[in-house]
Amino acid sequence: MGELRIHSVLVTGANRGIGLGLVQHFLGMPTPPKWVFAGCRDPQGQRAQELQNLASKHPNLVIIPLDVSNPASIKAAAATVEKHLGGSGLTLLINNAGVVKINKLEDETLEDMRQVYTTNTIGPLLMGQAFLPLLKKAAQGSPGSGLSCSKAAIVNVSSIAGSIEEMYVWEYAHAVAYRCSKAALNMLTKCQSLGYREHGILCVALHPGWVETDLGSATGQKPPVTVDACVQGMLKVLSSLSEKDTGTFLDWEGKVVPW
Amino acid sequence: MGELRIHSVLVTGANRGIGLGLVQHFLGMPTPPKWVFAGCRDPQGQRAQELQNLASKHPNLVIIPLDVSNPASIKAAAATVEKHLGGSGLTLLINNAGVVKINKLEDETLEDMRQVYTTNTIGPLLMGQAFLPLLKKAAQGSPGSGLSCSKAAIVNVSSIAGSIEEMYVWEYAHAVAYRCSKAALNMLTKCQSLGYREHGILCVALHPGWVETDLGSATGQKPPVTVDACVQGMLKVLSSLSEKDTGTFLDWEGKVVPW
Repeated sequence: MGELRIHSVLVTGANRGIGLGLVQHFLGMPTPPKWVFAGCRDPQGQRAQELQNLASKHPNLVIIPLDVSNPASIKAAAATVEKHLGGSGLTLLINNAGVVKINKLEDETLEDMRQVYTTNTIGPLLMGQAFLPLLKKAAQGSPGSGLSCSKAAIVNVSSIAGSIEEMYVWEYAHAVAYRCSKAALNMLTKCQSLGYREHGILCVALHPGWVETDLGSATGQKPPVTVDACVQGMLKVLSSLSEKDTGTFLDWEGKVVPW
Repeated sequence: MGELRIHSVLVTGANRGIGLGLVQHFLGMPTPPKWVFAGCRDPQGQRAQELQNLASKHPNLVIIPLDVSNPASIKAAAATVEKHLGGSGLTLLINNAGVVKINKLEDETLEDMRQVYTTNTIGPLLMGQAFLPLLKKAAQGSPGSGLSCSKAAIVNVSSIAGSIEEMYVWEYAHAVAYRCSKAALNMLTKCQSLGYREHGILCVALHPGWVETDLGSATGQKPPVTVDACVQGMLKVLSSLSEKDTGTFLDWEGKVVPW
């Protein structure tokens, strides 16, 4: 396992939960990234207060207005990031923004299915498209031929709830819209890995654990994993990834999750 | 393998391709269903001509206006089917309606992702919800305790293109919207199997083969399987299904397809 040396990273849904934890860990690294871009829907809002506090202390943290369900917002964010990078590429895109609806199978609606799919699945697709030029640039500017997260990578934060084989905690939460969106996100990750391999970009789906966040607590059960343990685990896994791992689905401890 | 004895069946997307083939085979059975409901978006249109011809010869065939992307249309169809059934249940729901967009990964759009997901994934969810009372009634009115397609079943026509493990013919067609929608449909099938088992309803995802239909030909390649071979195979598989098969993903020859 090598050290994670990242020139620049963009984390979506960065104002709380796992996204905020990732930003904090990146900023606290012995060799922090030159740029940490934190995407969130409302940078000026009350819910982005912690990000604002961090930004006042860390000049390498840039808060970006970003709604991943809105193609225009994604395009604007890509232009802003490109401007900051000033000619260099983006090393790491972490598609972390996600929503859940704890509906029962019989109560699931067209509107909730669409909304959850748009944020959890279509968002990561459009983000990959919009940031592809910057990710390609990072890969081209990096020495060595193999894939790695220090070269260029897309990390899609998926969930074991999207494992059709596992059907994790079905008895606590049907959450059909969420499960379907994450199964589809796993498929998207595989598509991205096949499509972007030639550009030198590693793509992986990560299950972060069932984590103590607003989303993780939505079932009413107490999640077993802290944000800190989740984020430390994820970064360790990311540092260990190579060519053979692109297109896989791993958990925060590096174990393969079945599709 | 037992004989398929079905009191009533509803096929969506029944005016052409696999849907039309299924309707023809049901009508031609030695013991045909009492009711064959053929759902299609525009029963009076030019594209439903073959269904109209069949209906003029087969009084047990009822053509139902049905757009599976429209909840109001689904509700109206359920009311119409219930009226025809006159107190008995619906044995078999075949969610066959589907669309494909042959986009490249880089050209996939929010609109196409949403449209394909709505028809291919949300449609089967809403159909299952709307027809659940009639499927339950069929199960309750059927002797024996095990699950089978002669008792009550939901058959979701999926695709090996939705297998994350296989990534079938990626080189011919990225079709990310389609692949994601079918991976999500496989997840939905697993959810339905867990949710509806207690009601006596078997749920299965079927890959029909790569079939000579408008959809199957959309890649520009010649599909290797005829509609007739596909439909004969599917009906043979359906007749063989029991309790242990609910929640699985099988092809038209009965082989398990990996998720």
